[in-house]
Amino acid sequence: MGSPEFRVVDVHTHMYPPAYVQILESRTTIPLIRRFAGAADPRYIILPAEAEALERVGEDASSSHLPGRPVTSHYSSLAQKLHFMDTHKIDISVISLANPWLDFVPSPEAGETAKSVNQEFSNMCGDAPGRLYFFGALPLTAPPEVLLASIDNIKGLRYCRGVILGTSGLGKGLDDPALIPVFKALAANGLTVFLHPHYGLPSEVWGPRATEEYGHVLPLALGFPMETTIAVARMYLAGVFEEVPDLRMLLAHSGGTLPFLAGRIESCVVHDGHLVREGKVGPKRRTIWQVLKEQVYLDAVIYSEVGLKAAIDASGVDRLMFGTDHPFFPPLTSDEQGEWESMTWNSEAVKKALGDGSDGAKAVLGNNAVEVLRLYKTAQED
Amino acid sequence: MGSPEFRVVDVHTHMYPPAYVQILESRTTIPLIRRFAGAADPRYIILPAEAEALERVGEDASSSHLPGRPVTSHYSSLAQKLHFMDTHKIDISVISLANPWLDFVPSPEAGETAKSVNQEFSNMCGDAPGRLYFFGALPLTAPPEVLLASIDNIKGLRYCRGVILGTSGLGKGLDDPALIPVFKALAANGLTVFLHPHYGLPSEVWGPRATEEYGHVLPLALGFPMETTIAVARMYLAGVFEEVPDLRMLLAHSGGTLPFLAGRIESCVVHDGHLVREGKVGPKRRTIWQVLKEQVYLDAVIYSEVGLKAAIDASGVDRLMFGTDHPFFPPLTSDEQGEWESMTWNSEAVKKALGDGSDGAKAVLGNNAVEVLRLYKTAQED
Repeated sequence: MGSPEFRVVDVHTHMYPPAYVQILESRTTIPLIRRFAGAADPRYIILPAEAEALERVGEDASSSHLPGRPVTSHYSSLAQKLHFMDTHKIDISVISLANPWLDFVPSPEAGETAKSVNQEFSNMCGDAPGRLYFFGALPLTAPPEVLLASIDNIKGLRYCRGVILGTSGLGKGLDDPALIPVFKALAANGLTVFLHPHYGLPSEVWGPRATEEYGHVLPLALGFPMETTIAVARMYLAGVFEEVPDLRMLLAHSGGTLPFLAGRIESCVVHDGHLVREGKVGPKRRTIWQVLKEQVYLDAVIYSEVGLKAAIDASGVDRLMFGTDHPFFPPLTSDEQGEWESMTWNSEAVKKALGDGSDGAKAVLGNNAVEVLRLYKTAQED
Repeated sequence: MGSPEFRVVDVHTHMYPPAYVQILESRTTIPLIRRFAGAADPRYIILPAEAEALERVGEDASSSHLPGRPVTSHYSSLAQKLHFMDTHKIDISVISLANPWLDFVPSPEAGETAKSVNQEFSNMCGDAPGRLYFFGALPLTAPPEVLLASIDNIKGLRYCRGVILGTSGLGKGLDDPALIPVFKALAANGLTVFLHPHYGLPSEVWGPRATEEYGHVLPLALGFPMETTIAVARMYLAGVFEEVPDLRMLLAHSGGTLPFLAGRIESCVVHDGHLVREGKVGPKRRTIWQVLKEQVYLDAVIYSEVGLKAAIDASGVDRLMFGTDHPFFPPLTSDEQGEWESMTWNSEAVKKALGDGSDGAKAVLGNNAVEVLRLYKTAQED
């Protein structure tokens, strides 16, 4: 049983442990970390448009248009993470490696890399017992037996509560039948899959003006949640949620756009001649609404009351979990050591949608995560 | 002033007048209409995946997998449209040409084609006075002077209340500066732009299993609303809503996913280093929430209470307008002459979200459209 005490939990918060930073610093293609002479912080370059900008800027640190984002102490420093938590009254953070995780690591090294990165996460959690848990990283490029062994390894790590997963899976998406044993192993071990976007949409959809004029708004604001939505819809149509009924997935950014589009997905399914002819539409079919209400959880990283209410309407107030997306989206017009809008917008949305101090607000801000991710055990044991 | 009488209005309902069907029948690349020996109805082939299926099936009408969808009397028959309206107690329909409109018509013919198609729409409305209005089609491939002349032509057509527009614009998207004069001409003439998707997303995002296994669900359920969302976000970032403040846009499918993602768009804008450096983020900036509440309307074609509530929360109950998407999504397991789920799901959503018979429900089901599109004039005059 969990403690009745209310605790604020951040389920969407990333860390870059030193071993991972080293890998990024050694790379010449994205994702990579590059130092520019004269610039205070190295830059983390991750999006295709940023790679193009990198080629243009060369080593010229005087440019006001350095590509990517500064790798500040918020990325790797445990003290900084705890400071952020204290500033925003976050009791517990469930930290995870940020995208693109180990998706790019060559196959022969992937197993060992995963092991060392997960051990670093484990150590960080051990350094702040009761305040930190983590989602591990999987070596998806490794051979199946290495991948499954890594799940065995992860489940033995005391503060690990699941894995963070991108949408490419083994390279063919999450509706790849080859992933079923992986999902089954995760489900069997009670490891929650935190599904997170990285790849966005093909850049031509943003049009000719995007790169020069719109910053990163379109790929981040639209590409990310659309990618998540597509990935889950593909899993749904492939029958993954029926084949692995005890799979637990936490969807980033309140499910992308799934709560809003679920009705249209349902309508398109029952009106699809192909699916009807193939016998895939019938009384036993699991609806996307059932998946939303019974098989997935949604983080509450949606930055608005409108979106949060729709997410709650779709999945239920007991399936939403607060998050901040720290260290991304630092404040640009105020002190980085002070309040972050990414925190305040999301917590305000919870309070507006559910009432400040209400049971619902407490559930979303922390209680759901404590229950679902079993965050009470260590607090009792320690 | 409008009549106080409550009327149900369908703002999202398509027709294929004979002149347009002839064009489609003469084509060899999508979009096209093809007759198969032995098949009762010709087939309308529109999506890239359907074109691939067309090549595979050849002329073999015995195949149970004929590509595309049957062109039934629901596509072109005025009597059938009125029967559909009577069956579902729809008083007024604002009909429009279906996608991809005239986007594919060669430039030299585009002006004349638009004129004849719009005249056919005008004649249909004249044949059922008070029950039909229409959104005209623009010859977007024509030279600018022909395009602007077509707006002059449309505004003189008695039953025309706006234009239907795809997201490609003149070929470069709706954030193309060359479209500003077009938007200004439409706004100056009180013509509402009904923004409708067609192009979806690049097909690789649906993954290797989609074409064979998932029917049309992904491109229709996700590709369409994502396309609309991207188009409006690009217009927003380009400043179109500031440059043409009296532009009126009605967004298909409740704005795609815009109500759900508006918070994330706002967050990504204020946290974007490039936009902040360029001075585009400041106290005078128009937020996407302002655009949603003051400059766009949303149809209510969203098939769920969850989505409809979010759309109302984002834009206000006075900016939603009921629609059916007829003749698309015919019932597959019941009589096509009877009730369509596309009607009942959307009307149920309105009743559940707002209360059956409430002022809000009446507003969404008809009163908003009557006011915004001035559908009362003819009823008074005739």
